[in-house]
Amino acid sequence: MSRSALIGLDWGTSQLRAYRFGADGQVQERRSLPHGIRHLPAGGFEAALALAVSGWDEAPLLACGMVGSRNGWHEAPYLDTPVDVARLAGALIRFGRADGRSIWLVPGLREPHRPDVMRGEETQILGVLAQFPSLAERGALLLPGTHSKWVSLRDGAVAAFTTVMTGELFGLLRDHSLLGAALPEAVDDAAAFHQGVQMIQRSGGAGALACLFSTRARMLEGSLAASSVPDYLSGLLIGDELRIAQAAGWIEADHPLLMVGEGPLCRRYQHAAELLGVSLQPAPETTTAQGLWHIAKAAGLLTDRNWT
Amino acid sequence: MSRSALIGLDWGTSQLRAYRFGADGQVQERRSLPHGIRHLPAGGFEAALALAVSGWDEAPLLACGMVGSRNGWHEAPYLDTPVDVARLAGALIRFGRADGRSIWLVPGLREPHRPDVMRGEETQILGVLAQFPSLAERGALLLPGTHSKWVSLRDGAVAAFTTVMTGELFGLLRDHSLLGAALPEAVDDAAAFHQGVQMIQRSGGAGALACLFSTRARMLEGSLAASSVPDYLSGLLIGDELRIAQAAGWIEADHPLLMVGEGPLCRRYQHAAELLGVSLQPAPETTTAQGLWHIAKAAGLLTDRNWT
Repeated sequence: MSRSALIGLDWGTSQLRAYRFGADGQVQERRSLPHGIRHLPAGGFEAALALAVSGWDEAPLLACGMVGSRNGWHEAPYLDTPVDVARLAGALIRFGRADGRSIWLVPGLREPHRPDVMRGEETQILGVLAQFPSLAERGALLLPGTHSKWVSLRDGAVAAFTTVMTGELFGLLRDHSLLGAALPEAVDDAAAFHQGVQMIQRSGGAGALACLFSTRARMLEGSLAASSVPDYLSGLLIGDELRIAQAAGWIEADHPLLMVGEGPLCRRYQHAAELLGVSLQPAPETTTAQGLWHIAKAAGLLTDRNWT
Repeated sequence: MSRSALIGLDWGTSQLRAYRFGADGQVQERRSLPHGIRHLPAGGFEAALALAVSGWDEAPLLACGMVGSRNGWHEAPYLDTPVDVARLAGALIRFGRADGRSIWLVPGLREPHRPDVMRGEETQILGVLAQFPSLAERGALLLPGTHSKWVSLRDGAVAAFTTVMTGELFGLLRDHSLLGAALPEAVDDAAAFHQGVQMIQRSGGAGALACLFSTRARMLEGSLAASSVPDYLSGLLIGDELRIAQAAGWIEADHPLLMVGEGPLCRRYQHAAELLGVSLQPAPETTTAQGLWHIAKAAGLLTDRNWT
């Protein structure tokens, strides 16, 4: 086993992911444990960490995610935007563990003029920016998910961001609302998704709240099959997220908009963007691991051999 | 007991309300039974009706609500807007019961160019219009609730309407979302409600989907107490409903906007409207009973003594 240059931890609520980096920044080994901060083993944080790095040689430890939240191991206070990699690297929190060794924590980001926060995504974003320096100069980044993040980029920094709870709202409506009551198993229906996006488009700025009940009305009139309700709802919500992004100026015609991720959810965003005439370029999945490496490098952790 | 001129039934999903009218249109007696169409007693619809009118003399029977839906007693198909009392009265469905007697059913309304329906509210609306003829000439009516209804009125008719699922969404977010997780008992906080409305106002047309996560961010930064989360969410959602009403042109500056109802929910709407500079006049609670009387009168049911 070659000597480790860094051990990176992506430590969220439900998962703990550990990466052992070689001197060239490549991930030599990766592990995934079900020990997010709400699912710690007996022995707590120290025990989870010991499991994650077991058998690896010692190296600087850099962690991002909920481990640095108020309910985490040690609080790493939010850093106000704008934030670039140098500023974030300069704000790492060094936390002395019980055995005298240290762990560095990446702070989350906060919007100074509007209530919004992120924790964990900042590291993934910096990983993307290292790969796409021209995007970092001026552009926007979308990280779709339960809580989608829209990120505005200027001069190499995260200038601002907004969280949109699209995925969570979709789950609530499908699983707990009148619209989702007693549905049969969902059947893929691209046309229903398309109709949901169009409904938003035709709503003249009103958005999803004004369109949700159309789901019920269309079921009653027989133009929407119960098995297609999830696709229609998804079209309404993703359509509204993109409408908001246009209304709020997060999408600029002359500057690139990249979406991080692959898979079915990203294909939905891609499809909705095409319908709305929005140019949304897929970026290859960039792992948080790459972000951890770049932050560690900017912080000088890699050359500092005095880790303890 | 004076002779009955009409028996009116407001027969919804969970409740059955019965009204016995005298010849002057006043309600002589009213009953409320827990026998909505999903909660029928043994013996089904006939048995529920027998309980509702037990001991009353015979009179024409007019029913509105879910009893006329596909899952009701007998389907009364939707009538497309625009609809005034004469048109609705001419579209009543006469349904012959097992014993040879009849019951008339009020149809629900449907939007012809956009998927939306109502069933039951049309009767309440016509009751309001009979009381406020100048509103019926040109104005708008709001029926707040789980599924709020916004009604545009022109030339004495319901010109168009839209359903906004504000109340249901509020319940979903409070009871099932991350935002409502593990909240203590709610404490009335008018300032938090106010802040929610203002957040929507400042969102520049983006609306609630873009603002929901601010609830979480504000709790984390300590500017929103957990016990005030329901009031803040309520401000976001009611504020967005009013924003939509303005954006969609349902509120016209030169024409009256009335809200039907009283009580805490209506006071919230009133408060939000004041913050947004919208003139929202409360109307005294107008019962569905008054609508049933006016529809029966327009249909000639009251003079037709041959009820069977």
